[in-house]
Amino acid sequence: MNTLFYNGKLLSFGGEDPYEIIDDAEVAVLGSNIAFAGKKTDTGYDDSLRGIDFDRKIDLKGKLIMPGFKNCHTHSGMTFLRSAADDLKLDEWLNKQIFPREALLTEEDIYYATILAVMEYLSGGTTEICDMYLTPDSIDRAVLDTGIRCVQCGCMNNFSQSPEKLRDWYDRLNKGSDLSFFRIGIHAEYTCSEELLKITSDIVHELKAPLYLHMSETEPEVQGCRERHGGLSPVEYLDSLKLFDYGGVFFHGVHVSDNDIEIIKKRNIAVITNPASNLKLSSGIAPIDRYLKEGILLGIGTDGPASNNCLDMFREMFLTSALAKLRENDAAKVDASEVLRIACSDGAKAIGTPECDSLKAGKKADIVVLDLSCPNMQPENNIVKNIVYSGSKQNVYLTMVDGVIRYEDGEYNIGFKKEDIYKEVKKTVDRINREISFA
Amino acid sequence: MNTLFYNGKLLSFGGEDPYEIIDDAEVAVLGSNIAFAGKKTDTGYDDSLRGIDFDRKIDLKGKLIMPGFKNCHTHSGMTFLRSAADDLKLDEWLNKQIFPREALLTEEDIYYATILAVMEYLSGGTTEICDMYLTPDSIDRAVLDTGIRCVQCGCMNNFSQSPEKLRDWYDRLNKGSDLSFFRIGIHAEYTCSEELLKITSDIVHELKAPLYLHMSETEPEVQGCRERHGGLSPVEYLDSLKLFDYGGVFFHGVHVSDNDIEIIKKRNIAVITNPASNLKLSSGIAPIDRYLKEGILLGIGTDGPASNNCLDMFREMFLTSALAKLRENDAAKVDASEVLRIACSDGAKAIGTPECDSLKAGKKADIVVLDLSCPNMQPENNIVKNIVYSGSKQNVYLTMVDGVIRYEDGEYNIGFKKEDIYKEVKKTVDRINREISFA
Repeated sequence: MNTLFYNGKLLSFGGEDPYEIIDDAEVAVLGSNIAFAGKKTDTGYDDSLRGIDFDRKIDLKGKLIMPGFKNCHTHSGMTFLRSAADDLKLDEWLNKQIFPREALLTEEDIYYATILAVMEYLSGGTTEICDMYLTPDSIDRAVLDTGIRCVQCGCMNNFSQSPEKLRDWYDRLNKGSDLSFFRIGIHAEYTCSEELLKITSDIVHELKAPLYLHMSETEPEVQGCRERHGGLSPVEYLDSLKLFDYGGVFFHGVHVSDNDIEIIKKRNIAVITNPASNLKLSSGIAPIDRYLKEGILLGIGTDGPASNNCLDMFREMFLTSALAKLRENDAAKVDASEVLRIACSDGAKAIGTPECDSLKAGKKADIVVLDLSCPNMQPENNIVKNIVYSGSKQNVYLTMVDGVIRYEDGEYNIGFKKEDIYKEVKKTVDRINREISFA
Repeated sequence: MNTLFYNGKLLSFGGEDPYEIIDDAEVAVLGSNIAFAGKKTDTGYDDSLRGIDFDRKIDLKGKLIMPGFKNCHTHSGMTFLRSAADDLKLDEWLNKQIFPREALLTEEDIYYATILAVMEYLSGGTTEICDMYLTPDSIDRAVLDTGIRCVQCGCMNNFSQSPEKLRDWYDRLNKGSDLSFFRIGIHAEYTCSEELLKITSDIVHELKAPLYLHMSETEPEVQGCRERHGGLSPVEYLDSLKLFDYGGVFFHGVHVSDNDIEIIKKRNIAVITNPASNLKLSSGIAPIDRYLKEGILLGIGTDGPASNNCLDMFREMFLTSALAKLRENDAAKVDASEVLRIACSDGAKAIGTPECDSLKAGKKADIVVLDLSCPNMQPENNIVKNIVYSGSKQNVYLTMVDGVIRYEDGEYNIGFKKEDIYKEVKKTVDRINREISFA
């Protein structure tokens, strides 16, 4: 399938000026890759594309084409819990509402709940996710069946998953396609015994693999670790077990010390911020301005729909900038342009897929088209700032992943009818509510 | 024009349980008022409506019908400045970017910039605004020409507007229609001399009118007042001048003392919170939990598009709840249900239009219809929480104001083509940029 987009504005994140917007641009997609992205030439498109048959030529009519959003931390399967338990204290929420319900989930439940999330990602311009949930096999299947791109990681802890399972998933799920990947991951420091962490360290060294995990999300979590481990923060403690010798990806990173930041830099660790979830669960505001100053690679995520409750990168982008301004007491901190770069480009590198970080020849065709002719995108004083500060899912016209258009003008192309997915998730909800009420 | 909505879910905010959602409901609109809203009866609609000719009967197919959002503080005309100057320190933003550009505005510029904002309100489900900007006459005209509902107030200060003008607008602009109102308003304590405030106090007493104004938005503003006025906060100082003897509406109310709150209660003052703007300008987080506990009437606003930058009540609702949780360090604070009630119902009372606070017989037909068949609204564990925590403008299917459908399935019915409005606002931007660069 070859697609030509023409007559658009292009924000490629691939040029010398990362924020340059090229008018009257075209983007040629051959198979799953970008073949050309740039200014329209006299011949209608670049000479290198002469003779190519395009299956579709799409007149963008001035719409903006750019790399899709990378939602770098989510638990897609938790859609079944959306709005099931909010406005509760954290421990009551987790222990009385979330865990008992999750314990009743099947592989099939998570398959459909993940597809529901995929629909939300696509309709919001997200082309790639970094997912962490209970059943990697059925998540992999949901990803391949719907065609989104997904780096998933384990969430091993004392109660679920195991070193053997992680190894098995790592071996099997990285061979499927360019769309679905599995990385070594644990839930968090506070849910893993030292024995389990040491085994994980062995795996990390054997595979020369970065470690993905929730890290320093709340103040009590950091305090608890310091009490248990001779004053060491979670970052320090896990580093002492050599878990980050091949890098890592930290989800949250809200409460970090100067020394934590030194370790993050030394180990080439990426940090994924989840501002809406950190607000709603009253966890705090991550030090984004500091991370940027220290040159730490960042990504943005929504976290799961049980805590957020939506999977909307526009909201996260606004919050990433606006909360930094509040935290630093300075409205000039964390410019919107940097935030858009993190959401569309840096995030891809952070989770280990640099081939998806920009629209230029050879990169993966993971694309979002935004309609600038909505009132919230007008006037066009600054398109980048309009997207970050004023943009909404209402502006998403088209989402392409790996060269395939998966969402266009309100319609999905994922091999399922949306009503059927809603019915399946409702079945899960009804069954679990029934089982809970009998318990 | 008479309209019947049927086969919907109804959240009226008019029943004993304000959050009750009635399945298989119908809403009948005769002229500009609600004639019936409730459960479908055997005859297809309520007996009292027999014999009525409906111009349109709309099958909601399970969509949700509820009172539209009330955006209780905005500066609509500032759309021309959207994304023109962000990521700057507050004084640089205001004095070097905003004020010089505003000084070049004409009545006609503000007319079109306001209409651009109206399009954004309608496409986001907002049926009523409380507007404050420079040219009440052309704002009134934009409101009446497009058919949104608007309570506007003066923004008098030492540099613009005057007591005579306020009196003149008050006399003339309250006679137009049920859609457009003018209230006595000043910009803020710190931009008005004591002489001007005393004259305003006379006007307030003569008209027995509540006073609308920006109040206690930033810490320096409160400190400055205390230094100038013998330790009095802005609330205390203005109350000492008897400016609130007939009530008032405070925009922002971020930094208030215990005694300020006592005055707010004693004078029956309503507070309008603007969470996104307060974040982005690094002003702080308003004490919403405290206000609710004290029984103070609240509304939610976006503030103007130069500071926010969008006019999206979904974002504001999420922030009203989530920021309160962060501020109070308690994820159980400020339940989403209360926030939706504030956004759709309480806000109408706060700005002085209780006739728009619910969908029940006799109330104004200011309605939004939300499409629950979008993935972010699924599953329906809790529809109210889905709206507040997961909702987006993407879910807005229809907006009706005063009985007239002004937005439906992506199309506007406001007497203008959207492209023509964009052109007019672009003309304003281009002209002002030219004049600024010559200055």
